[in-house]
Amino acid sequence: MNMIDLINKKQHGKSLTRDEIRYFISEYVAGSIPDYQAAAFLMAIWFTGMTSQETGELTLAMAESGDQIDLSEIPGIKVDKHSTGGVGDKTTMIVAPMVAVCGVPVAKMSGRGLGHTGGTIDKLEAIPGLSTELEIDQFISQVREINLALAGQTANLAPADKKLYALRDVTSTVDQVALIASSIMSKKLASGADKIVLDVKTGSGAFMKTVDEAIALAQIMVNIGEHAGRETVALVTDMDRPLGMMIGNSLEVEESLQVLRGEGPADLAVLCRQLAANMLYLAGRGSLEQCGQLAEEAVNSGRALETFALMVAAQGGDAAYIRGEKTFDRASQSYTVVAASSGFVHFIETDDIGRAAGLLGAGRSRKEDAIDPLAGIILHKTLGDRVTEGEPLVTLYYNQDEQLREAVERTEGAFVIADEKAKVRPMVLARVTAEGVEMTCSDL
Amino acid sequence: MNMIDLINKKQHGKSLTRDEIRYFISEYVAGSIPDYQAAAFLMAIWFTGMTSQETGELTLAMAESGDQIDLSEIPGIKVDKHSTGGVGDKTTMIVAPMVAVCGVPVAKMSGRGLGHTGGTIDKLEAIPGLSTELEIDQFISQVREINLALAGQTANLAPADKKLYALRDVTSTVDQVALIASSIMSKKLASGADKIVLDVKTGSGAFMKTVDEAIALAQIMVNIGEHAGRETVALVTDMDRPLGMMIGNSLEVEESLQVLRGEGPADLAVLCRQLAANMLYLAGRGSLEQCGQLAEEAVNSGRALETFALMVAAQGGDAAYIRGEKTFDRASQSYTVVAASSGFVHFIETDDIGRAAGLLGAGRSRKEDAIDPLAGIILHKTLGDRVTEGEPLVTLYYNQDEQLREAVERTEGAFVIADEKAKVRPMVLARVTAEGVEMTCSDL
Repeated sequence: MNMIDLINKKQHGKSLTRDEIRYFISEYVAGSIPDYQAAAFLMAIWFTGMTSQETGELTLAMAESGDQIDLSEIPGIKVDKHSTGGVGDKTTMIVAPMVAVCGVPVAKMSGRGLGHTGGTIDKLEAIPGLSTELEIDQFISQVREINLALAGQTANLAPADKKLYALRDVTSTVDQVALIASSIMSKKLASGADKIVLDVKTGSGAFMKTVDEAIALAQIMVNIGEHAGRETVALVTDMDRPLGMMIGNSLEVEESLQVLRGEGPADLAVLCRQLAANMLYLAGRGSLEQCGQLAEEAVNSGRALETFALMVAAQGGDAAYIRGEKTFDRASQSYTVVAASSGFVHFIETDDIGRAAGLLGAGRSRKEDAIDPLAGIILHKTLGDRVTEGEPLVTLYYNQDEQLREAVERTEGAFVIADEKAKVRPMVLARVTAEGVEMTCSDL
Repeated sequence: MNMIDLINKKQHGKSLTRDEIRYFISEYVAGSIPDYQAAAFLMAIWFTGMTSQETGELTLAMAESGDQIDLSEIPGIKVDKHSTGGVGDKTTMIVAPMVAVCGVPVAKMSGRGLGHTGGTIDKLEAIPGLSTELEIDQFISQVREINLALAGQTANLAPADKKLYALRDVTSTVDQVALIASSIMSKKLASGADKIVLDVKTGSGAFMKTVDEAIALAQIMVNIGEHAGRETVALVTDMDRPLGMMIGNSLEVEESLQVLRGEGPADLAVLCRQLAANMLYLAGRGSLEQCGQLAEEAVNSGRALETFALMVAAQGGDAAYIRGEKTFDRASQSYTVVAASSGFVHFIETDDIGRAAGLLGAGRSRKEDAIDPLAGIILHKTLGDRVTEGEPLVTLYYNQDEQLREAVERTEGAFVIADEKAKVRPMVLARVTAEGVEMTCSDL
C-alpha cells in the first residue's frame, strides 16, 4: 500500500477500504507518512468527501490509535455527552449530576480546548481547589462511589485525531463535515461510554450556521456511533443567542449552580433537562417523557446540586461554594454596555459576544495561553427581550483592560435592536437518531 | 499575508494576486512556508485550477527564484526549444545544429531528468569525452564562436520549481495542466532565450494522451510566454509510436547523426525540420516555408553535421564519432523479439517500449541512479508497417540481464498486430501560437 495511491483515489472520489484507512492512520501516527502527504490527502477529502462507511472506519481507526478507556468495572450503562461548542455552554456541569442522581453512572472526560471561553475542564477549575487530573483508577472508583466524575482527557486519547486536527488547523481543512464528525466521535469512542448524546449547536454562535448543516453533521455522527455499536442520539440546538445569561469560566459555574437550584434562565434549564432526558432514555430509564420528569425531580429534590457538591469535594474542591455557603469572587473591574436605542433585541451576533469574552481573558487562542477564570460577561438582555435606550445590555468583567476597548466594540456591534420582535426559536430544533430526524416545534 | 488565507482562496476557486503568488513562492523557497501547507495549496489548485494570469505570475515568480541566465552578450535573437518528452525523442541534438548553421545562435541548457531514457544531457554524454558541464563564460563564448552550445542546467535554475516539483511528485499533484505548464516554462524563462519553440507530445508514449489535452497544455505555455514577453510557438506532435527507430542514449546519438547525414527515418527528419523551421521563423529568418528550406539545406549541405562536430570537439568530445571516422560501441548482448503473427503494426503502447528501455538500463527512476549509455532498443518495424510471423520486430541491447525478461514481456505486449492497417497520423498535429490553433492535416 502506498500513500500516493490513496491520495489519488480520494482525488478521483473513490472510496477507501477499511485496510487503506487503517494504513493511513497507523503510518501517519507512526510518522512514516509525512505531513505533506497527509495534507494533500485531507485537501482531497475536503473536495470529494467520504462515504458513511469510510467515515466510520476513519473514526474507529483514530479511536483505537491510543488509550481506550475501559469503564467495564463500573456497573450499568454508561452514557457520554458532547457539545459541538457555543457561547455560554455550561450544560455538562448541570446535566452530569442530574443524570447521576437518577442512577445512571457518569464517567465523563472533557477537554480544555481552544476558544472564546475554556472547555468544561477550565470551567470546573474555577471552583477553588478542584482538580480534574484524576488517575484512571481514582476516576473509576469515584464513579463507583458517587456515580459521577468529570476529569480531563488523558494525554494519549485518540492521538491520531490530535495530530490530524493540528494539521487541518494549518491547512484550511477544518470545515469538512466528515472530518469534523470523525474528530469528535473518535474521542467519544475512546472514552469508553456505551452510548452517546450529542448536542449539535447551530446559529450565529456556532460553527454550523444553518439547521440543515447541523442536521447533516448530527446524522454523520449518529451513523458513526451505529457503525461502532454505540447507540447515539443528537439534539440540534439553538445558538442564535448565548446559552443562559453568563459567559466566562467562574460565571458559568455560578449560573450552573443557579440551574441546579431550580433558579437559572429558562433556555439553559430547558436544554439541560432535554439532554439529561435523552441520556436517561439511552440508559433505559423509561420513555423520553418519563426521563424528562426524572431529570426535573433530580433538580427539584436538591439531589443534583448535592451530588455535584459531593463530586467537587471528592476532587479536592471546596464544596462550600456549591452549597452556597461561600460566594464566588468577581473580577476586579467591570464595564456596562447600555442600549443605544429602544425596541427589541432582534439579533445577536453570538460569535462576537464569545470573542468579547475571549478578549477579556476568558479564553485562549493557543494551547499554552493562561485563562483568567474571573473574566467574562453577564447579559442583562437576550434575544427577544424588550429594551429601552440607556438600559444596561451587558456587563463585562475583567482584571486586565488591554483589550477592553475591542471587547466593548464587539459587544456593542453584536446587538441589533429593532422595532420588530425577534422570532425566538425553541432551544431544541431537531432530534436525530439512527431512525431519522424529528424536527421540534416547541420546547417540552 | 498568511498562507492559510491563500489556501482558502484557492479552495473556493478565487484568483490570487501577483503579490500573493510571489509571497507563496518566496516564502516557500525560504522555508518559512512548510511543505504541508504547500501540499494543501497544490491540491486545492489541482481541484480548482488557475487563471491564465495566475499561471503567468506563478511561472515568473518561479523563474526569478534563482539564477537567470543573461545571454545578452550573444548577438542576435536567441531561440530555445523544449519537448515535453516521449520515447526516442532525440530532436535537440539534430535541431540545434540545423538552426545554428542558419546563423541563429543556440545557447541551450538541458536537463538530465528522470524517465525511461536519459535527458538530452545524458544522451550527449554517450559521446566519448564530451562534457556538458560548462561554466557560464565558457558557454557564452562557445556560442559566440560556433553559434552552438548544449550544456547542463545550473544547479540553481528555478529552485522554486525544483522544490515544488519534488513535492508534487509525492502528493499526487503532478497531473495539473497549469502546474505542468508553469514548471516547464519557469526553466525556459530563467534560461534566458528571447523566444521559445515547444514540442508538446501526445499519444500512447506521452503524458498527454489526447490531442485536446496537448493543445490545452500548449495554449497555456504559449500564454505564459506572452505574459513574460517571450514569443512562444508550440507544435503538438505525434507520440503514438517511438520517435525514429532507436531508443537509448548512445543509440539515439547514432540515429541523430543519421538524420544530420540526411539518412534518418522520415518521421524524425520531418519533425526536426519543422521544429528548426519554427525556431528560424521566430528568429525572423523568413516565412515558415522559407525557414523549412533553410533547415533542409543545413542538413543537405553537410554543414549541420559539421557544426555538431565542432560543438562536440569544443566540449571535449571525440568528433571522429560524429564525422563517421569511428563507430559507436553497442551493448555486449542483444535479444530480438519477433512478430507472433502476420499483419500490420496496428498499435504500439509506446510507453511500454520506453519502460522496456528503462528496464535494460537506459533510464533512471531516481536522481542518483546510473545510466547505461549503451542499453536500448532498435525497432525494425514501427506503426503502420507490414509484418510477417517470425520476422524481427525489435532488438533489445543490454549489458545486464536482471530485468531482461520483464523488458521482453513489456516489448511483446506493446505491439498490436492486426489485419487492418493503422491510420498513421502526421507528425505535427497542430501549431499553437498566441493567435490561435492551426490543425495540421499532413506533414510538410
